[in-house]
Amino acid sequence: MTEPAFLSNARIVLINTSHPGNIGAVARAMKNMGISDLCLVAPQQYPHERAVWRAASAVDILDNATVVETFEEAIADCGLVVGTSARGRRIPWPLVNPRVCAEKIVPELPQHKVALVFGREDRGMTNEELQRCNLHVNIPTSEAYSSLNLGMAVQVLCYELRMAAIADSLTADEMAEWDTRLATNDEVERLFTHLEQTLIDMEFLKPEAPKQLMNRLRRMYSRIRLDDLEVQMMRGILSTTQKWVQKARDNDT
Amino acid sequence: MTEPAFLSNARIVLINTSHPGNIGAVARAMKNMGISDLCLVAPQQYPHERAVWRAASAVDILDNATVVETFEEAIADCGLVVGTSARGRRIPWPLVNPRVCAEKIVPELPQHKVALVFGREDRGMTNEELQRCNLHVNIPTSEAYSSLNLGMAVQVLCYELRMAAIADSLTADEMAEWDTRLATNDEVERLFTHLEQTLIDMEFLKPEAPKQLMNRLRRMYSRIRLDDLEVQMMRGILSTTQKWVQKARDNDT
Repeated sequence: MTEPAFLSNARIVLINTSHPGNIGAVARAMKNMGISDLCLVAPQQYPHERAVWRAASAVDILDNATVVETFEEAIADCGLVVGTSARGRRIPWPLVNPRVCAEKIVPELPQHKVALVFGREDRGMTNEELQRCNLHVNIPTSEAYSSLNLGMAVQVLCYELRMAAIADSLTADEMAEWDTRLATNDEVERLFTHLEQTLIDMEFLKPEAPKQLMNRLRRMYSRIRLDDLEVQMMRGILSTTQKWVQKARDNDT
Repeated sequence: MTEPAFLSNARIVLINTSHPGNIGAVARAMKNMGISDLCLVAPQQYPHERAVWRAASAVDILDNATVVETFEEAIADCGLVVGTSARGRRIPWPLVNPRVCAEKIVPELPQHKVALVFGREDRGMTNEELQRCNLHVNIPTSEAYSSLNLGMAVQVLCYELRMAAIADSLTADEMAEWDTRLATNDEVERLFTHLEQTLIDMEFLKPEAPKQLMNRLRRMYSRIRLDDLEVQMMRGILSTTQKWVQKARDNDT
């Protein structure tokens, strides 16, 4: 899969972060999802060794991060600014969930820079900052505990951005990257015929009273999509079984 | 929004975790998403104060966690076992992405327990462990850096589980929780009429050469979905503007 290049227009903005470890975790989450533009607005402790440690192999994201004094500087060149917000402000904002948010952002990325803005660990974004945003996103959380860690919130949003960016190459087909071709229907049918004959040979299946045996076996194997090597393997086992049955009969006579 | 009760049947299994901080981060990520059943297979350092610290307000998840010696014990009572896997094993597994994974898991949750299994920080799950799983999930990452932090991986999967569990109550409509009703089309039309008359009054709009002014204003305001209070506010501004224009005219005569 080629990297969707326009993700380079997605910027993560962190306002006034207090824990440098969170900045490192954000850098790693971004790089894992192919996003590289990080802007720190007045971080409380930065640079800091805990940021480097938590970034792991994403130290380059920190090295290239921009540090500015004001939120205005961070979003000055952006065509779309998205704020992250908890529910239940006194004046509500239009709120989208992270999936809808990503679906709105990704089509704009080829045209201009888009900022995804995250507020302080303890208080989030101020109303003044939220008013500078064109769109507001909220991660649906359990009412029992709604406060996400900053790095986790960035991870969820960056994951949704990536999912939307690679939507064309995503597949619901779990066999898409299989290493051999799937068996054809005809090959599977011949396997069932071979299986049935073998079961008759070994007198496990009585043709005059077959009951539901073959139906149940068919249903069982149909739940997997057999590949060609698996069909060959099964037929080999059946042939060997038949030989042993034949040999036992020969010995009896 | 009521909590989807059957999420209680979702179990997060961590195998042989080395950093206790990660266990705490996992507990918090779970509780944020309404998932509570945590099972630790032979954790290397546990209990540990870093786990408690990172769990923040999710210490109850740690308190109720089960600690077992073997993977078999962790999944013994589960009807579906899902393993997390990196790409590119020598014998590939059928791999689904986290969204498809959640869509497969959620319909099974009312029936039986489902385990979501995460391997070691450095080596993931062994082939033997992966073979005990019915389904394998992979988080699509950038090729530049594919190794997700354990807590982050759990956060993404739990988020997708929650999104699938609350799918019925999700809406793409960002105005769904607006605090007042949206304006009717008729109210908006009367606003446009009022606006046009005001612009004529102030001789900004010349009825004999209207150009594209009203069309542009219509297009601009149509991009916002005005609510009834906003229409009232705008009409108030227009009426006041008209009064000032009238007053200026009266003074002139």
